[in-house]
Amino acid sequence: MFSKAIKLYHATGSPNSRRVRIFLAEKAQNVTLVPIDLGQGEQHSVAYRAINPRRVVPTLVLTNGVAIGEVPAIFRYCEAAYPAPPLLGTGPVGEALVVMWERRVELEGFAAVMEGVRNAAARLKGRAIAGAHDYEQIPALADRSRRRVANFYADFDQRLTQASFVADDAFSAADITMLVTVDFATRAFDMPIPPACAALRRWYDTVAARPSTTA
Amino acid sequence: MFSKAIKLYHATGSPNSRRVRIFLAEKAQNVTLVPIDLGQGEQHSVAYRAINPRRVVPTLVLTNGVAIGEVPAIFRYCEAAYPAPPLLGTGPVGEALVVMWERRVELEGFAAVMEGVRNAAARLKGRAIAGAHDYEQIPALADRSRRRVANFYADFDQRLTQASFVADDAFSAADITMLVTVDFATRAFDMPIPPACAALRRWYDTVAARPSTTA
Repeated sequence: MFSKAIKLYHATGSPNSRRVRIFLAEKAQNVTLVPIDLGQGEQHSVAYRAINPRRVVPTLVLTNGVAIGEVPAIFRYCEAAYPAPPLLGTGPVGEALVVMWERRVELEGFAAVMEGVRNAAARLKGRAIAGAHDYEQIPALADRSRRRVANFYADFDQRLTQASFVADDAFSAADITMLVTVDFATRAFDMPIPPACAALRRWYDTVAARPSTTA
Repeated sequence: MFSKAIKLYHATGSPNSRRVRIFLAEKAQNVTLVPIDLGQGEQHSVAYRAINPRRVVPTLVLTNGVAIGEVPAIFRYCEAAYPAPPLLGTGPVGEALVVMWERRVELEGFAAVMEGVRNAAARLKGRAIAGAHDYEQIPALADRSRRRVANFYADFDQRLTQASFVADDAFSAADITMLVTVDFATRAFDMPIPPACAALRRWYDTVAARPSTTA
């Protein structure tokens, strides 16, 4: 079992943090949650930058002090350390297909919502890209993001007419990222799943009912 | 050994294809290379879209017809199927750190160059994002990309004062993505490694000398 001595630096409202919290809940693992106050800029503190030079949450810090940033990297550590239940696929092909689909969801959906938010929110003026460097917002990206999300919904509705879950016929990390993306788009863009996307809606109702999703 | 019956759909000038070609060369694996003519738009053909709905190269197609797209997914398949030599780290922590560093190189370096190219090249007008949907170019992104690459060089020069290789003290997939990014930025932006980045230059000269890099 995970030691409570393992720490997950996270923020309650951070969609990337939620991806990891759900993943850990599916593994029935408990770690110590350490909140980082993004509103107060705590991610830019000297203390947090020593843990994560990209200044983003979440970061998993092991008992020996090793700090693992980036959601897919935290997923990979937890899957290797705690294989059951598998969330990153089984066998060479199964593993590859989960990586493929989880990444497509992230690139085409999750990243589009994030880019739209970062290029529009007043509190993120001058901070259009997370990390150590400042970049001005580009308003055209906010408009483009909404069109990307609409296409994402249509494309993955089509996908879910062919498969029970995003990557396969078993629940995986790709479903976690998809669920978080839908909720993020709903909250940030007021873009819930469109009524026409019946397969996506069926999938959502199944996945959102899992107890892990409240983590 | 890989069968020649396994196919890698690729393009010679595609940096993402090169990442996979180098990875396979490090594993001493031979697959059948199938060229896709990006200049002629072959990635949009009905035949290729059936293999990769995102219409991007590379795609690895196994003997049973399973198609694996997305570079990290192809890496994952090859690592699981052919573990030696390890290129994605060993042990839970080692694996996670390679995923983390390879991703940071991709997000902060590789993706910045790609975004700059796609938002500036005349041949990509209306095609600023790879995939099934058309998006207009945003010229401000081309300018921003160059600033991002300059920051990327400085940040990873600093990293390479602390480690022999990008992820660790062993060569890994993170070094492959880094090498391809440097060469891509040099070619596409005329931005070679700056003279001040001595650690990055030392790293580059070591890695570029590996026979795999001509793949």
